[in-house]
Amino acid sequence: MNYQSIIENIHQQIRQENHLGNLAAYIPELAEVDPDRFGIYLHTVEQDKFGCGNFEEQFSIQSIAKVLSLSLAIDLEGPSLWKRVGVEPSGTAFNSLVQLEVEKGIPRNPFINSGAIVVCDVLISHLKNAKAEFLAQIQKIAHNTGIKYNKEIAASEASNGYRNFALVNFLKSFGNINNDVEEVLDFYFSLCSIKMNCIELASTFLYLANYGRNPIDNGKIISVSNAKRINAIMGTCGFYDESGEFAYRVGLPGKSGVGGGIVAIHPGKFAIAVWSPKLNEKGNSYRGMKFLEQFTTDTESSIY
Amino acid sequence: MNYQSIIENIHQQIRQENHLGNLAAYIPELAEVDPDRFGIYLHTVEQDKFGCGNFEEQFSIQSIAKVLSLSLAIDLEGPSLWKRVGVEPSGTAFNSLVQLEVEKGIPRNPFINSGAIVVCDVLISHLKNAKAEFLAQIQKIAHNTGIKYNKEIAASEASNGYRNFALVNFLKSFGNINNDVEEVLDFYFSLCSIKMNCIELASTFLYLANYGRNPIDNGKIISVSNAKRINAIMGTCGFYDESGEFAYRVGLPGKSGVGGGIVAIHPGKFAIAVWSPKLNEKGNSYRGMKFLEQFTTDTESSIY
Amino acid sequence: MNYQSIIENIHQQIRQENHLGNLAAYIPELAEVDPDRFGIYLHTVEQDKFGCGNFEEQFSIQSIAKVLSLSLAIDLEGPSLWKRVGVEPSGTAFNSLVQLEVEKGIPRNPFINSGAIVVCDVLISHLKNAKAEFLAQIQKIAHNTGIKYNKEIAASEASNGYRNFALVNFLKSFGNINNDVEEVLDFYFSLCSIKMNCIELASTFLYLANYGRNPIDNGKIISVSNAKRINAIMGTCGFYDESGEFAYRVGLPGKSGVGGGIVAIHPGKFAIAVWSPKLNEKGNSYRGMKFLEQFTTDTESSIY
Amino acid sequence: MNYQSIIENIHQQIRQENHLGNLAAYIPELAEVDPDRFGIYLHTVEQDKFGCGNFEEQFSIQSIAKVLSLSLAIDLEGPSLWKRVGVEPSGTAFNSLVQLEVEKGIPRNPFINSGAIVVCDVLISHLKNAKAEFLAQIQKIAHNTGIKYNKEIAASEASNGYRNFALVNFLKSFGNINNDVEEVLDFYFSLCSIKMNCIELASTFLYLANYGRNPIDNGKIISVSNAKRINAIMGTCGFYDESGEFAYRVGLPGKSGVGGGIVAIHPGKFAIAVWSPKLNEKGNSYRGMKFLEQFTTDTESSIY
Repeated sequence: MNYQSIIENIHQQIRQENHLGNLAAYIPELAEVDPDRFGIYLHTVEQDKFGCGNFEEQFSIQSIAKVLSLSLAIDLEGPSLWKRVGVEPSGTAFNSLVQLEVEKGIPRNPFINSGAIVVCDVLISHLKNAKAEFLAQIQKIAHNTGIKYNKEIAASEASNGYRNFALVNFLKSFGNINNDVEEVLDFYFSLCSIKMNCIELASTFLYLANYGRNPIDNGKIISVSNAKRINAIMGTCGFYDESGEFAYRVGLPGKSGVGGGIVAIHPGKFAIAVWSPKLNEKGNSYRGMKFLEQFTTDTESSIY
Repeated sequence: MNYQSIIENIHQQIRQENHLGNLAAYIPELAEVDPDRFGIYLHTVEQDKFGCGNFEEQFSIQSIAKVLSLSLAIDLEGPSLWKRVGVEPSGTAFNSLVQLEVEKGIPRNPFINSGAIVVCDVLISHLKNAKAEFLAQIQKIAHNTGIKYNKEIAASEASNGYRNFALVNFLKSFGNINNDVEEVLDFYFSLCSIKMNCIELASTFLYLANYGRNPIDNGKIISVSNAKRINAIMGTCGFYDESGEFAYRVGLPGKSGVGGGIVAIHPGKFAIAVWSPKLNEKGNSYRGMKFLEQFTTDTESSIY
Repeated sequence: MNYQSIIENIHQQIRQENHLGNLAAYIPELAEVDPDRFGIYLHTVEQDKFGCGNFEEQFSIQSIAKVLSLSLAIDLEGPSLWKRVGVEPSGTAFNSLVQLEVEKGIPRNPFINSGAIVVCDVLISHLKNAKAEFLAQIQKIAHNTGIKYNKEIAASEASNGYRNFALVNFLKSFGNINNDVEEVLDFYFSLCSIKMNCIELASTFLYLANYGRNPIDNGKIISVSNAKRINAIMGTCGFYDESGEFAYRVGLPGKSGVGGGIVAIHPGKFAIAVWSPKLNEKGNSYRGMKFLEQFTTDTESSIY
Repeated sequence: MNYQSIIENIHQQIRQENHLGNLAAYIPELAEVDPDRFGIYLHTVEQDKFGCGNFEEQFSIQSIAKVLSLSLAIDLEGPSLWKRVGVEPSGTAFNSLVQLEVEKGIPRNPFINSGAIVVCDVLISHLKNAKAEFLAQIQKIAHNTGIKYNKEIAASEASNGYRNFALVNFLKSFGNINNDVEEVLDFYFSLCSIKMNCIELASTFLYLANYGRNPIDNGKIISVSNAKRINAIMGTCGFYDESGEFAYRVGLPGKSGVGGGIVAIHPGKFAIAVWSPKLNEKGNSYRGMKFLEQFTTDTESSIY
């Protein structure tokens, strides 16, 4: 299939359409991004690669990193992880405390903020230096030591993060945080501060399209079964309260971040990263959603 | 792949394990079913067929029929359907009124009771005699005029259906029911009363695995795109508040009913029906869930 | 105290101020009332009487009648009534189904719609002809056979009452309605259709200011203790989600209706009725609230 | 009225009845109190005083102190206070975050935890040293410099206070906390740590029964109008999700604390303090509720 011309055509077409939505405004590092940035990168398990637009410029991947922390936590903790966090779509906003109260401190899934915070707590319990070891793991997966935490973003998140401070203390009040709340949040804010470009994002996530193995060296990162499970969680919970819509329109497991990035996986075929910073009202990239809908239509690559 | 021996092995293995859960108790027609019934039928798009256990005995398919009414409604109404019902997982019980109140009478998805009731209302608006024409459509898809509404079940549902009476009136109070509430509920209760055996269930749903076309005569039932969309909605919303768990453990789009039936689809490959009447606490067949988890593991047929 | 000049002064003053709010719009009988009607009537336990403005014109007392049905139900059913309905403020809108679902069909208090519907069901269980006997009881309390149900209003309520149909069916689904849902609603809509003028309203409610006895003939209507309890429930639950505000600003137990009426009680002293049809956003009479706040300030008659 | 024999009789009678409920268990200072302590003190505006049982032993007044901080905050901040906190009963538990999320960070009333935390924030904004000045104010009202914060209790609260840490950060995320969260919580935990005996409690609260004036020296503490308003808020919100029940059974404005204390006010007549540490399931003193119900019945002193 001529992926290059397909992605270029869609990219061009969408650039000519109305560009709705808004930049994330709660920290300057997101609010000041050029709203017209628009990059795509497709990386197949056969190592074919296709880029278009601003695919070489790094952006804040934000919540997309939660897939990577989950991946490591499943590996380290095993099935007991699911006693502390569920795998169900939340039906509410990503930072809601309502469901958490009703469900006694067990977050609905690992991609809403509360669930990702519990995952950070799990990693801290397993690792001597969770922040450093997690980053080393990502760098190893991506074969790229240039992937780093961004201290300015992490500091901005922390200085505006009262809601996340509320979440971690709320979780702790239910006994679902074992480590120091400050340490957990420091890791969480660092996690969300990672910057990647579309190339790095697609390449890093390619193991989830390759049954848990790194396509470059065929090294096992996680088990086949866990790769499928992580994809399934992305398939039902990856887009906050728009997860059903994404499945309906795009038909791939994926994960979005408020920096405007989306990564999507076709198991056995490819990982694709899209970046466009303006968000729709559900907090997902406006153009990213449109691009991927057209892409899976044109390439007939919905998993459904 | 030797499907026959695989399904027989799993069937035998699960029969030897603890059989937890409870029969649906709210109407006698469900409460009095033999709890040990356990049938499986697999029907591939190449027309290979494999059965095991009580696959020839009819049971009440209940909510599984909601996929068929949705299929017809999408076809008749087009995209404007989605102004009246969403495609998001609900995060709550199948008959909850809470979310409906917060979201002003727009049901979260077409598979929770309120959403299925709206779909019935849509069909009544489009068809002269919705009940008869809908059944004729199913018979045509299944190439089987033996599929019928069950009057006893429908009457039992109606006589115990105060919650559904509440739902339809609540929907109407928000302006999201256009027809007479009694007529809408009569259709809804009839819809849920359909009986099929596993053979009929798998065969009827096979068009969703075959890109909208009937594999027998290649006749178009719905568009490719709508087939994918219905599969996607099953993938995120098919199992009430256990939809994420089903994706995580089984990895196929599917739909369950309180009669203990489950149908699951592998796009491009097969439809599979399982029936075992005892339900887990989320209202899905206890053995059906276990069977399908083992089946997609053994056959490596998760879509993720 | 010179009550007459006080109420006239406040009446005049408020007529000169901005008149905000809106008429109830859901039935024509309420939507077409002259919004400038404004009547007051004060009736003391010593049988002193003071009127001002449109106090002789009848209006739909709506939910105010719920106090009278509760009064009769407490008398007939005794304390077991409180197994089926609570005495707590709801913290939500008068017709919400959310709390009812969470609390398994036990309405928070007898003045929200669901609670008043349960009270109707209780009366039907105790009386041969609840509608007729209840009206006779009110006529007897008021020494006034001119008080009647209004068939047009009841019919309008019924034809627009999908939400109340939803409520009664929802209650029945929890087993908290013993009689036929149609009969219960017919009584409920009739109850809400009663018309009174301010004179009749204040006189009818005077027994609650007089320790359960009719001030005219000293006949016991309910026990001292039940009179205090009904006043207490009005004091905490009489104004839907503005009950705290009414206590804070006015400081009397009372009850409002969407017809723009408010009745308030000073135990041992008086009953006062105010009518002005435009409602604030919480559904209580805009001018009625203002009048009573000024009245209890000027007369130092808050119970607090 | 022979108050002394009345309170002694009720005290004796209740001591002979079943003693249900449980001690507050979340901090050792409450969990280790002798559950059989039971004291009463009645202080009239005419300075008559009546005590019974363990009325001379200090206990942790906990949330009762929230009335005193509110009293000072109303005085300092004026009506703009009500832009930041409401006066409505919550209909939910005292430490729920659900309603706070739905209502965008505006606590329902000043007696649930979130509301009391906002009141602390208001006091910190008005006072140079809120902790010291607030205590001085209470000592002045009570004519008693022996009233102190208890450092052990405050430290215990802080070390177990994750839910309150969650609340203050949640409030801050909505912009409803202006000061440092640590400082606000330190004040809040100190406030809740105050110990008084029944004599001190009744005497301190007597100004609310005396129209805002100290009955000893007739000095104005707050305005008549604010005294009535605080009583009204106690009348509708003083007992968490049992406020309606307290009005129904007792009929006085009042406030409870998890230390087992209750203070109740009869405007124009008296303040009464009761202490018995075992709490019913709503978190209010089991014997305290029973005592006051019998007391207002025997003395006919319900305000309703």
